[in-house]
Amino acid sequence: MPCFISLCLYFLLVLKPVRTITEDVEVLVILPKNNSYLFSYPRVAPAIDYAQQRLKKDGGEYSGLQFKIQYENSDCGNDALFTLVDKSCEKKPDLILGPACEYAAAAVVRLASHWNIPVISAGALATGFSHKNTEYSHLTRIAPSYLKMAETFTAMFQYFTWKSALLVYEDDKEERNCFFTLEGVYHLLGDYNIVTYAIHSKEDRLDTDDILQNIYDTEVVIMCAGADIIREIMLAAHRRRLTSGNYIFFNIELFNSSSYGNGSWKRGDKYDNEARQAYASLNTVTLLRTVKPEFENFSMEVQKSIQKAGINMFVEGFHDALLLYAIALHEAMKNGHSKKDGAEITARMWNRTFEGIAGQVSMDGNGDRNGDFSLMVMTNVEAGTYEVVANYFGVNGSFQVLPAFNTDRFTLQGRRKTHTEIPD
Amino acid sequence: MPCFISLCLYFLLVLKPVRTITEDVEVLVILPKNNSYLFSYPRVAPAIDYAQQRLKKDGGEYSGLQFKIQYENSDCGNDALFTLVDKSCEKKPDLILGPACEYAAAAVVRLASHWNIPVISAGALATGFSHKNTEYSHLTRIAPSYLKMAETFTAMFQYFTWKSALLVYEDDKEERNCFFTLEGVYHLLGDYNIVTYAIHSKEDRLDTDDILQNIYDTEVVIMCAGADIIREIMLAAHRRRLTSGNYIFFNIELFNSSSYGNGSWKRGDKYDNEARQAYASLNTVTLLRTVKPEFENFSMEVQKSIQKAGINMFVEGFHDALLLYAIALHEAMKNGHSKKDGAEITARMWNRTFEGIAGQVSMDGNGDRNGDFSLMVMTNVEAGTYEVVANYFGVNGSFQVLPAFNTDRFTLQGRRKTHTEIPD
Repeated sequence: MPCFISLCLYFLLVLKPVRTITEDVEVLVILPKNNSYLFSYPRVAPAIDYAQQRLKKDGGEYSGLQFKIQYENSDCGNDALFTLVDKSCEKKPDLILGPACEYAAAAVVRLASHWNIPVISAGALATGFSHKNTEYSHLTRIAPSYLKMAETFTAMFQYFTWKSALLVYEDDKEERNCFFTLEGVYHLLGDYNIVTYAIHSKEDRLDTDDILQNIYDTEVVIMCAGADIIREIMLAAHRRRLTSGNYIFFNIELFNSSSYGNGSWKRGDKYDNEARQAYASLNTVTLLRTVKPEFENFSMEVQKSIQKAGINMFVEGFHDALLLYAIALHEAMKNGHSKKDGAEITARMWNRTFEGIAGQVSMDGNGDRNGDFSLMVMTNVEAGTYEVVANYFGVNGSFQVLPAFNTDRFTLQGRRKTHTEIPD
Repeated sequence: MPCFISLCLYFLLVLKPVRTITEDVEVLVILPKNNSYLFSYPRVAPAIDYAQQRLKKDGGEYSGLQFKIQYENSDCGNDALFTLVDKSCEKKPDLILGPACEYAAAAVVRLASHWNIPVISAGALATGFSHKNTEYSHLTRIAPSYLKMAETFTAMFQYFTWKSALLVYEDDKEERNCFFTLEGVYHLLGDYNIVTYAIHSKEDRLDTDDILQNIYDTEVVIMCAGADIIREIMLAAHRRRLTSGNYIFFNIELFNSSSYGNGSWKRGDKYDNEARQAYASLNTVTLLRTVKPEFENFSMEVQKSIQKAGINMFVEGFHDALLLYAIALHEAMKNGHSKKDGAEITARMWNRTFEGIAGQVSMDGNGDRNGDFSLMVMTNVEAGTYEVVANYFGVNGSFQVLPAFNTDRFTLQGRRKTHTEIPD
């Protein structure tokens, strides 16, 4: 008889089926409906759906989590906060995805942090959001912030022993993507000689002479502006013979929005040939692209839903956001916490690495994703084509040069300060 | 019989007693509890009580309005918004009084405007709040804003035909009273040559040499800083012989907070004598003080409650706020609107003049109070005492000179640019 009881106990304890944690999770997605944004919810929703299906599939350990996802339209301003307040008075969501725009995110994250609700955004990339000890305590950033991108420049400054830079940015005084992008660079290059130049493209005509006046005392020019502005500056620099190795030019192109120059010299106008030569001296820092087999399926499925619009950092990010939340919530619940323990769940999303849709996602101890970036240059000047020549890996801060890399290109040549203008 | 009916009708129509409009009004006061603020609610509450009693008294036309006033503590930051949201989810207030701090007010006014709730503040003085057509639509400012104060300077610049100014302000990077004060001046003096100089008193030691380097190209120096900083600058200016009429110095002292220099040269230290001479060249712009008989009673009653702390612009302002709201609500209700018609009530508070506790209060068409300011100068240099020599009246933009006024004092003398330092 005692033997029988022992046996029963054995079966009870050892052969007990794995209990699936079940929970309903209310998710409020606060993103613009307007498709002119790369992170509009019609673009992002198929990716979130895809993540939801993956989590449910095969009765895996996260299959007991029932996500109830509500999409709310918000612009890039105050609407986001109003949406949150108006939707939350009756019942607060368990998780907020978005907003992506800086000003919208600031207000939402502050209130969500006050309410102990986790927020995951593939935007909110500005440097200010790094301050997680106070008002942004519940924010997890699932896409690499501008500060992470800026690490690519500190790595290069160390590698090439440059000392000074001119930061040229377009400021639209609305979303201010380029302002925030170069703010990150400015922040990290604090130990170097930095001069900044703002282009107020909506108010003033572009004065390339004025910009290039600022170039003479610096070695490196880092630009963030729309494609047309970048081209005009490069043409002007080329005409003044500033593109013969005495200055190093960079263009930042993060997610192909209209904010960023797309590295393309070609316009089909009479300046194409000259632009191609000028762009031979333009280096581009961009997100590193990884491709793995599962990504192809995701990409096909999502593209089917969003028609022509392509996958981008935000679409991938919000997919991975749901995955990361599921992992953290599951772990928190296994440890006796509830879905309402926002701070606990947030903490479990930080300082962890998991398999995202496009590759490994590494979150740092401050809840910000480590970023990998590529350096592209024109390797065939005749054809005007580009190649990746180096990569920066945020997780360990390494700068990896590839076979196509040529050191000479990044070594400052004799600083001939020729002011001569070449006629068109 | 018809005659009797007519008579009845006559009594019904003509002798009908005036119907008092009755309504319960929920008022949420969002101000700091901490008495270190001039607008802390323990200071302001007695004034609001006083206004409430006055409105009830004698069965007057506003006596049917039952104000239910709830005081909520908020600091100068995000707490104010959190308070509003947390208090309003169940039931929204009909009126919000406060916040006074700029950053706290910005978030609260945005949400209140979205919810169609009128906000009246004796603070929120920064220039940005003038934009009532969008996010601050429901804000009424019952104390003169920094932009109104700045009108005093435009009036003087016109009167004395000055052309240039150096604006020196202390920036604490928190409440930023002086930054916002001179922002108003900067805004209105757009047509003149203006140079600005920020003193980061928390980070750097005061470098009077550096400040005075900026003085040489300007005629007028307008300062907003704590009393000790003003004194150090004036002493340094005096030692460099900049106080002999070749520059015009102004100090702004709005509500005696620690933000503003209080015009006092006396410290009981060895520099008192020198400071008194230096301050002979320092002009002070301050709020015009009016006294009327009823004010004495208010002042006595309120001071009884708040013990030593004196009456100030905020205390008066929040008293008048309740009065103005009562007038507007009463009028709106008489015209068929309800207390929930926030935009309607707000509109009826604007562009109107009424009798406040300290004198006439004139609200402009943008819902901002017109301001009256005084210009004080040292009229007895031996004794080191001050007098009001001119007043500026915002309602009609007039600049009134008083008997003690002396034109010479405001006329630029030969611009001797002596850099000689006089030893202590």
